[in-house]
Formats: sequence, C-alpha cells, structure tokens
Amino acid sequence: MIIDLRSDTVTKPSKGMLDAMMSAQVGDDVFREDPTVNALEDRLAKMFGKEKALFFPSGSMANQIAIKLHTNPGEQVICDKYAHIYNYEVGGVAFHSGASCKLINGNRGMFTAEQVKEAINPPEYYYSQSSLVEVENTTNKGGGACWDFKELEKIKQVCKTNNLGFHLDGARLWNAMVAKNETTLQYGKVFDTISVCLSKGLGCPVGSVLVGDENIMRKSLSLRKLFGGNMRQIGYLAAAGLYALDNNIDRLAEDHRKAKEIGAMLNTISSIKKVEPIETNIVIFELNDDVDEAKFLNSLNEKNIRIIGMGSNKLRMVTHLDYTDQMHDKLLEVLKVL
Amino acid sequence: MIIDLRSDTVTKPSKGMLDAMMSAQVGDDVFREDPTVNALEDRLAKMFGKEKALFFPSGSMANQIAIKLHTNPGEQVICDKYAHIYNYEVGGVAFHSGASCKLINGNRGMFTAEQVKEAINPPEYYYSQSSLVEVENTTNKGGGACWDFKELEKIKQVCKTNNLGFHLDGARLWNAMVAKNETTLQYGKVFDTISVCLSKGLGCPVGSVLVGDENIMRKSLSLRKLFGGNMRQIGYLAAAGLYALDNNIDRLAEDHRKAKEIGAMLNTISSIKKVEPIETNIVIFELNDDVDEAKFLNSLNEKNIRIIGMGSNKLRMVTHLDYTDQMHDKLLEVLKVL
Amino acid sequence: MIIDLRSDTVTKPSKGMLDAMMSAQVGDDVFREDPTVNALEDRLAKMFGKEKALFFPSGSMANQIAIKLHTNPGEQVICDKYAHIYNYEVGGVAFHSGASCKLINGNRGMFTAEQVKEAINPPEYYYSQSSLVEVENTTNKGGGACWDFKELEKIKQVCKTNNLGFHLDGARLWNAMVAKNETTLQYGKVFDTISVCLSKGLGCPVGSVLVGDENIMRKSLSLRKLFGGNMRQIGYLAAAGLYALDNNIDRLAEDHRKAKEIGAMLNTISSIKKVEPIETNIVIFELNDDVDEAKFLNSLNEKNIRIIGMGSNKLRMVTHLDYTDQMHDKLLEVLKVL
Amino acid sequence: MIIDLRSDTVTKPSKGMLDAMMSAQVGDDVFREDPTVNALEDRLAKMFGKEKALFFPSGSMANQIAIKLHTNPGEQVICDKYAHIYNYEVGGVAFHSGASCKLINGNRGMFTAEQVKEAINPPEYYYSQSSLVEVENTTNKGGGACWDFKELEKIKQVCKTNNLGFHLDGARLWNAMVAKNETTLQYGKVFDTISVCLSKGLGCPVGSVLVGDENIMRKSLSLRKLFGGNMRQIGYLAAAGLYALDNNIDRLAEDHRKAKEIGAMLNTISSIKKVEPIETNIVIFELNDDVDEAKFLNSLNEKNIRIIGMGSNKLRMVTHLDYTDQMHDKLLEVLKVL
Repeated sequence: MIIDLRSDTVTKPSKGMLDAMMSAQVGDDVFREDPTVNALEDRLAKMFGKEKALFFPSGSMANQIAIKLHTNPGEQVICDKYAHIYNYEVGGVAFHSGASCKLINGNRGMFTAEQVKEAINPPEYYYSQSSLVEVENTTNKGGGACWDFKELEKIKQVCKTNNLGFHLDGARLWNAMVAKNETTLQYGKVFDTISVCLSKGLGCPVGSVLVGDENIMRKSLSLRKLFGGNMRQIGYLAAAGLYALDNNIDRLAEDHRKAKEIGAMLNTISSIKKVEPIETNIVIFELNDDVDEAKFLNSLNEKNIRIIGMGSNKLRMVTHLDYTDQMHDKLLEVLKVL
Repeated sequence: MIIDLRSDTVTKPSKGMLDAMMSAQVGDDVFREDPTVNALEDRLAKMFGKEKALFFPSGSMANQIAIKLHTNPGEQVICDKYAHIYNYEVGGVAFHSGASCKLINGNRGMFTAEQVKEAINPPEYYYSQSSLVEVENTTNKGGGACWDFKELEKIKQVCKTNNLGFHLDGARLWNAMVAKNETTLQYGKVFDTISVCLSKGLGCPVGSVLVGDENIMRKSLSLRKLFGGNMRQIGYLAAAGLYALDNNIDRLAEDHRKAKEIGAMLNTISSIKKVEPIETNIVIFELNDDVDEAKFLNSLNEKNIRIIGMGSNKLRMVTHLDYTDQMHDKLLEVLKVL
Repeated sequence: MIIDLRSDTVTKPSKGMLDAMMSAQVGDDVFREDPTVNALEDRLAKMFGKEKALFFPSGSMANQIAIKLHTNPGEQVICDKYAHIYNYEVGGVAFHSGASCKLINGNRGMFTAEQVKEAINPPEYYYSQSSLVEVENTTNKGGGACWDFKELEKIKQVCKTNNLGFHLDGARLWNAMVAKNETTLQYGKVFDTISVCLSKGLGCPVGSVLVGDENIMRKSLSLRKLFGGNMRQIGYLAAAGLYALDNNIDRLAEDHRKAKEIGAMLNTISSIKKVEPIETNIVIFELNDDVDEAKFLNSLNEKNIRIIGMGSNKLRMVTHLDYTDQMHDKLLEVLKVL
Repeated sequence: MIIDLRSDTVTKPSKGMLDAMMSAQVGDDVFREDPTVNALEDRLAKMFGKEKALFFPSGSMANQIAIKLHTNPGEQVICDKYAHIYNYEVGGVAFHSGASCKLINGNRGMFTAEQVKEAINPPEYYYSQSSLVEVENTTNKGGGACWDFKELEKIKQVCKTNNLGFHLDGARLWNAMVAKNETTLQYGKVFDTISVCLSKGLGCPVGSVLVGDENIMRKSLSLRKLFGGNMRQIGYLAAAGLYALDNNIDRLAEDHRKAKEIGAMLNTISSIKKVEPIETNIVIFELNDDVDEAKFLNSLNEKNIRIIGMGSNKLRMVTHLDYTDQMHDKLLEVLKVL
C-alpha cells in the first residue's frame, strides 16, 4: 500500500466514475457536437450564474486564456507573490499575454483591497497599465488557505472603480466552498471569470472549466483552438466531471478532517519546527533547521509514504479521494513514532 | 443513418477501442507516471527511430510547439500557401512563436527543393532569418495529396546546407504511408520533428504525438506545460492510440478505395465542374459556376449526407473508419441520381 | 565625385537645413516639451486633416506601431507580397504584434479592392481574424509605382464594410503626391493612419511621422516609449523636417525627371533585358541572363557609381536631392558607353 | 530664471557641444556609413574593453534589446523591485521578450549575491527558467545609490556558476564611477552587457550605447532594426556624445556636491520628515504626513523651481549640467526660508 500525498491530482477514477465515462455519449467537440461536454459546460455555467463555460485540458490553460481575455500585451496583472499563475505556469503570463505580474506581498497567498489599490499603476504613459486582479482560492503555496469572502467583495469594488477585470483561479475552489459553506453563485457574482478544476479534489482524470459571461468569453473558443486545447470526442472526460459534481463535492470535508488530524499529529513531532494553519486539504510544515529534508523525505518513502518538498525546508501533504481511512490510520501511526 | 463525410475526425471509438481505453492502467502524467502514456510514447519514438515522443491534446499544439522548438521570435517558417499551420491554426505561428510564414506557391500543397532555396532569406540584418521548413503529408487543403519522397529528401539536403529545421505535419501521415507503401523509419530519417495524429484516420477520440531527438525535444515538456497541454490520467486516451496502432492503420486502404469510387461517381455528374485527383481519403470537387453551393449542400443534407464547403464553390468529402460499406453504397446511389 | 544611387536615404542636410537645425529651439520631448517637435507634429497633423501626429526615429517604428494600434495578437494584416512591412522590417509584424501577413499577389506592389475582399478570412473561430489592410505608396519593391487613388477609395469601402483598419506606409508618399498631383488632405480622408518619412526624398537626416485621429492614436505615445523610441531634445531633427516641408517637396519632380531620363538611357543598353516602368524616383532594371550581376555592379563601382542589387538579376537606382545635374550628366555619359 | 530639477534629462547642448554637432561628418548609419557614429561606438567599446558597441535612440531600447539578447520567451530576469526595466519601461520585458521579472526585495534598489542565489528558479520543467540578472547603477528609484563593486563581483560569480547573463543598466553609471572613483574597464570585466546613457549627466540631447562582446551582441544590429531604432545620418547626435565624453564626465562631481548641499539644507526644514542618503546627483526626500504634496510642489513652482513627486509623499530633485551656481544659490536661499 503506497500512501501518495504529493498532490490531490494523483487520484484515479472510481468504479462509478469509470462506468460513467464508459457509457458517455460523445461527438466531435471541435464541431461543438459532443453532447456530454455540452451538458457539463451548461451545468457549470448555470451553477456559477454565468452565460458561458468552456472545458479545458488543464487549469493552466484555463487560467492563461482567462488572463489573455482580460489583458493586452504590455499590461499588468495584480496578484500575490505566491500566485500559481506567476510561480508554476512556466512564465506563461509573459509568454502568452506579453503581460507582467505586479506582485503583492500578501499573507499566505491572500491580500487586501487596500493592497490592490496601492498596486494599481498610475495612468502615466511610461507605466504598464493595470488591467486585471487575480486571486487563488484556496491558495496552493499558501497552504490551502481560504479567502475571507468579504475581502473578495471589497476587491471587486476596487476592480469596478478602476476598470480592472477580476479572475479567480479556482483550482481548489470546491475545497474553499465546502470549508466555508459558500456557494458557486456567490463566486459567480463577484468574479468576471473563474477557472475550476475537475481533477484535483473532485477526482477526475483530466479537465478544468472556465466560466464567464458572453462578452468576456467571446474569444475563448478561438483562443482555446489557438493554444491547441481543442479536442475531439472528449465526452469521456466530461462524463467524469458530471459524475464528480454529483458525487465528490461534499466528501471534501473528509479530506479536510484528515488533513487537520495529520496536522495535529505533526505538531507533536520534535523534528518539526512549525505546522502552518490547516483550513482545507493541504498540510504545509517546516522541519527544524538541523533536520535534513532529503533524509526526512527518504525515511517516509521507505515506509511507502510520498510527500513533496516546497523549498526552504518546507514539506507538503495533500489529502484526497484516494487517501483512504486505512491509509490515514497507517500514516498517523507512522508519524507518531517518527 | 447519417452519412458524415465532413472530416475523418468525427469517428467514435469502436467497441474494441473502448474496451482498451477503459481497462487502461493510468497515473498522473504531470508526474510522468502514466504507464499507458509512457508505452504509447515509447512505441511511437521507436517506430520513427527517434529518441523521444510526447503526447499532445491536439495536432495544432504538437505543430505549434514544434515550430517554437525550431524558431526564435522574428524568424521565418517556409511552408506552402495551403499549409494548415498558416491557414487553420488561428495565426498561431505569429502568436506563439513571433515568427512569420514565408509562403511558397506550391502545387496541391506541395513544393520543390528548388522553391525552398529561393524562399530562404539572404543573411542581411534587415531580413527575417529563415529557420524552419514545414511540410504537410498528406496535404489537407491540397486534397489528400502525397509527397514524392525523393523530393522530401532533396528538401532535407537544402535544410542541412542552410541550417534549417525540417518539420512534418503528419496529421494524415498514416494515409500517405499506406497509399505509397512507405515506413515510419523512412520519415524519421528525413525529418527533425514529426507530429502524427491519432484521431483522424486512426479513429481515436483525442491525441497527437510529436517525435524527435532529445536535443531538439529538450524543451518540449516544458513548452507543453506552458501551453497548458499537460494532463493528468490520460492513459485512457493513450490506450486508444495503442489500440489504433495495432488495428487501424492497414485498413486505411479501404478509405482510399472508397474515396476513389466516390470520385469516379462525381466525375459523371453534370453539375460538377471538376474532381481533384484522389490519392487518399479526401475528395475535393468543384461545382459548376451556375450551381449554388448552399443549395447543393442542403440537398445532400436532406438525404442525411453531410459534407463541407471549402470556399470558391469547392466541396470536400473525407472517408473514414465510421463510413461503412452500407453508407458507401447509399452515397453512390444518391450521387448517381443527383 | 561619387554618384550614390543606392537609396534616397543617403542624402546629407544642405546648408539651409543645417542652419535650421542649428538654430532650433529644443526641450525634453519625453516631457513633451520640445517646441520644434510639437510644431512639426502639429503641422503634419493639420496637413493630413488628422487630430494627432507623432515623431518617430524611423519609418519602421512608425509602421510597426501603427500595425500594433490596429491589431491584436493572432490577427491578420492584409498586404502585398512586396510590402516593406513584410519583407524588410525583420519579421516585425509577428514579433511585435503577434500578427500574420495575408499576402496578396499584386501588380508592382499594388492590388485591387476585389483582391482585398477575397483575402479577408471567414469569421470561423479557427481562422486568424483579418483586422488591417496595409498599402505602400509609392511601392518600393514595385519600383516606385503610384497607386490609382480611385482604387484606394474602393479599398477604403471594403475596409469600412468589414471593420478593417487602413494604414498607409508613406515612406515615399511625397513622391506619389508630386507625381500624381494629389494632396495630403485626400490621403488623410482615406486612411486611418499614415506614416510619412522625412529622410528619403525630403532629405532630412532622421525621422518619420505617424498621423491619425485621437481614438486610434490614443496608445501611440505609450507604445513609442515601449519600443524605446522616446528621445529627449530632438528639436534638432524636427527642425530639419520643418525645413524640408517648406523647401524639398516640389523639387521631387526633378528627381522623377532624372529617373525617367536614366530609364530611357538604360533601354538603349544591350546587356539590359528590361527596364520597369518609371513613375517616380526609382529605376528598377533587369540584366540579360548572360550578364553577371556582380561584374556589372563592379564595373559601375569602378566609375564611382553605386547602385544596389535586388535579387534575381534586378538592379535598383534611386534619384534624390544630392544627385546633382552634374552627376546626372556624368551618369548618362557612362551609361551611354556601357 | 527657471530652476528645473525634475531630471538630468532636461539639459540642452552647450555652445561647444552644439558646435561639435553641427560640424560633424555624417553618413547613412543604416548602411553603417556614419563616421561619427562609428567613432563613438569604437571609443565606448574600447573604454569598456568590449568588442562591440551600438548606438540607440534611448536607454529603454538599449536595455530592452539587451534583455532580448540574454533571454528566450518564458524565461526570467532577476532584478530589484525598484528596477527601471520593471517599473518605467511600460512592461517591455514581457512585451518584447515574453520574459518575467523575478523581483528581489533589495535595499535602495541594490541586492546581494545571496539574494540572487535564492531567486534562481529550480530546474523543474514547470518553472520559468532564470537566465539573466540585471542591476542598475546608480539606482534611480533608490535615490542615486551606488553599488558596492565587491558585491557586483560576487553576483558575477553566481551568474557564472548558474549560467546567467549579467546586464548593467548604466543610465547613470558615469555618476557612480565619478562618485566611487571606478573605471569603465572594471565594469566591462564584470558585466556581459552595459547600457550607458549620453543624455542624462553627460548632457547630450539624445542617445544611449550598449556595449558587449561579439558573441552576445551578434543579433543586436538586427534587433535594433526590428525595434525601429535604426536611424540615418545620426552623426549629429554621436558628435554630442564624443564631446561629452571629453568634457562632461569629471564635472559630475560638481552635481554631486550640489546635491549634497541641497540635502543638508532640506534636513533643516521642519516640514520634511526624511532626506534619503545622497551619494550622487539625486535627492529624494519625504514630506511630513501633514504636508500636502501638491501644495508643496506648487509653492516651489511659484518660485520657478520644478521638481517631481515619486508617490507616497516622496519628492525628487536631480542636479545636472544646466543647474548653475547661480541657480544653486537661489535654490538654497528659497529652501532656507521654506
């Protein structure tokens, strides 16, 4: 039994999901004729109260195309210094959109409306023009932290006043909504565009969906084709998404519970300096300065436990659908005697 | 019974392919741990005698990333005026690579080594530098025409002499190889990079693969991530590819035979001015000037026959895996009395 | 005495122009405080009936920024296969704007409204969107040919109907206007943006100016800064421009006369296959197939006559302000006995 | 008498410089035939011990092209959060090079070799690759601060070890060298490319020069043409540069002295909270929270004293060649009674 906590992306479809995939009706989505894709897109658009949704092969593509929809080359995207779009998407903001990131020095990947105001460039012609604010919920590098929805509403006001777009990277939005008891419609009201991932907490093999209103999404289909994200009979993947929306959202609470229990156990371990606050399914902790990270990782690995390092002696565990109760008991046992 | 000849992309997986998909072993391909993807990539790399192969969600992405691998911004790609990369990939050459297309006025999408020589820009500093030659085999807009392999070898020499990369858009390469009795190894020797499609003639739901040697492909994985083409458990799609390589290549000859029979019938129809030479599975024909294209398309549509217009009163039919003998008989019958 | 006919860019300021430069009032143009630049820009804007004009260090920058003003990345610029922006600006359309050129197979660099209509891409999402038509008057590679103004007006209509911008590369517009007795106001009415060069026929050391209305030019200052074209005390250069507008336009007729006389003489030379029609100050002629271009150039060079080759055994001479009557007599003499 | 301390770019050529300009020998620099430009480039290349130098219409263009020479799209430039290339060049790093800035939280625009090491991205394929370190000396937004040369040498080592380019934005390098008694050869040894400005402290109307060795500069001429920075008879501007190198470097010490005297006076003013350390010709000071910036600026303006605000109640004065002793006395007098 391998306990893989490197990411919530390692899950494999359950029997039920696989059955749903296998029996999916499909068509050529490049001609927009895949009924299952269409059903998934319609459903997600409605859930968020938006006019349009579009399926993508990855969250990176959904985010990068959202950024392109909101910016012109030379402009600036305001985001946190921890933002996934800045740190883990291979410099895509500059590559695809010719845009810069104006980084905010936030708290666990989150910032305030006041900080957004300060980050907006003056209108002088030698400045890059600010055109988009981007947030991530939950924050990945921030340890699965959840935004205060009231702050998001305040930021929305700043965006409106300053004519800025507002995009949400919702790679783990389902986790945030379950943890904070929030709704998709709430989020749809605040953000212009939202990308949500089907293959992290929800357990699908592939796929992210971008939602937004028609005026903003107008070029999204063309851009997806431009990026090479148009695929053919992908109803198989979309069927997994529909199954996950029905079956795999509420159960995220369980992942969160397990993450907190792991955190509590980590707090008792002497070689660990600090465990970051745990709000959802991500556990980030820091080793004592005298503990060798490679050795620590290796000792877990020998016990078939896989986790990843995040630099600076910090390590990350992510709980998920395929992290069973049995694995959980085993892990806690191992940690107890570490 | 709907006879859909708009493209060979409209096929749906057969029972056998679907079984192969659903019993596939999968893993997280972003961690490079999907065994079925790895098997497909290894197999195709070996088939073409190349060191590396990489799976892509679409042929457009495989082509555009190949172009990026071969060029720097400001440089020039030499290709035919009919090239798919120039005409049907949303201006991607300029968007992604900042490169221009130097268009050759070829014959049915094909050109000569002599024409390549003439197209190369002089080395003066105010010219865009030529860095890549791109060909398409079979040619889509050229009506499924197949290149003379000897000419490709001559072009290769021009590329070598002038330090140009040589990329093949092999969206329908399988058709060319079957029609001309050629081998993957032959192609691997002549081209630096080749994209092959699994979802046209081969009948897979999704996927293209780019092959090339390590030195050229070094950044391909990073670029695929940058474009958002990294997906998670895509063994399901790769399994279809493996199945197709085993089962769906030789049978392309049947598509070609049917296409030729359709062409022969079209040649007997008075409202048709000209049928272009048919070498593989694409049939392009031109209506007489006094025939209304929309009406013609509609009259076929009413008989449940779907084909597409290509502009200038030209129409296209494409035969494929899901175009059955029964459909073929029905179509010829309909055409006979047109 | 060296007779330099390689280009009309080789002229040096006359005594009068140099005096004007030397006594110019200057200021920091980055703060928009150079009075001479402001005067030149105001004057040219008024001449063309446009709201705004902006000084540029080169015509390439003026053109490339005009293209950026009219297009978004991934879109298409319709222009002649001979267009300077496509051939001699280092692939800038793709580099700076991420845009492609849709090349028209014109006549001496000029095309028809009908050809523009055909070149416009359909609105399907997989096509690059057409957004700009660009023409050059006179045409450089077309041998100084002048457009029929009526055709330009027809193209303008096509642009309006199809929501396309219309840009004029007026590197040698002054020559066209003198040759055809046309006015700046005429041109201002037909085109959205026009670049005019001060350093070719007009004899200034440096400078081009882009004119257009405020709504289109809104980002031009910011883009010029972005491209690094903002300079400080450039009133010295602008003063040359003002001087040239006063003194050097009408005299272009003399350059044209001399070019025609050169052409007539070339027509009598047995080693020359063909002299292209001469409408302004450019003379393009083709050597007989058995004449060696390098030798021919060299034999002129030995007589202190400098001209340039254009590829394919074609050579070019350009008359200009510094090509004196004395040089003209000498040249005709040399040619007579060639 | 207007005392303009907004920037050292507002200077106008002295009689001597103007004489040098107007008697310059010129030629068409696009053909590389301007003798004065060639002389200036040769001289600066030799001064810095580099193989090549190239004249640019602005420092922004010199910097942006240097960045392009060192990076590929998608890569990362490590620089200070105060860097001119990031803050005041209209987002050019992303626009032109498709590259991102990895910002270091430095001290007055300067950082340590240790900070560079931490800023380098790991080699994993989902990170943007680090390829260039950029520093500015003196730092503009850092108040004219001068780098410790020893730290630059340490950073050079980090660059070597990690295969990173090292570029110096030397907009005010002359000030640093005079203040710290350093030489151009020293700088040439440490940096791969250096841009130096002729129009700030040195008092020329226009121009920056980029120096570097042939292997790095190989594409610089082509890129300058691509950016539209190729100009024709610019010997007039180059002559000013040659004059300035002979006459205007040593005298920068005088600007520095005056800046320090201004600073000392500002320190005695009760409405001023803080004067930043003054090392060269830039004086940055902060008003007390209860002082209105606009009113303060206006009260100076009424006395014909022009300075600029830098945001956050900070103001900037820059001394220069045209800031005379008489103006200095007058200014100190005004400040004394403020």
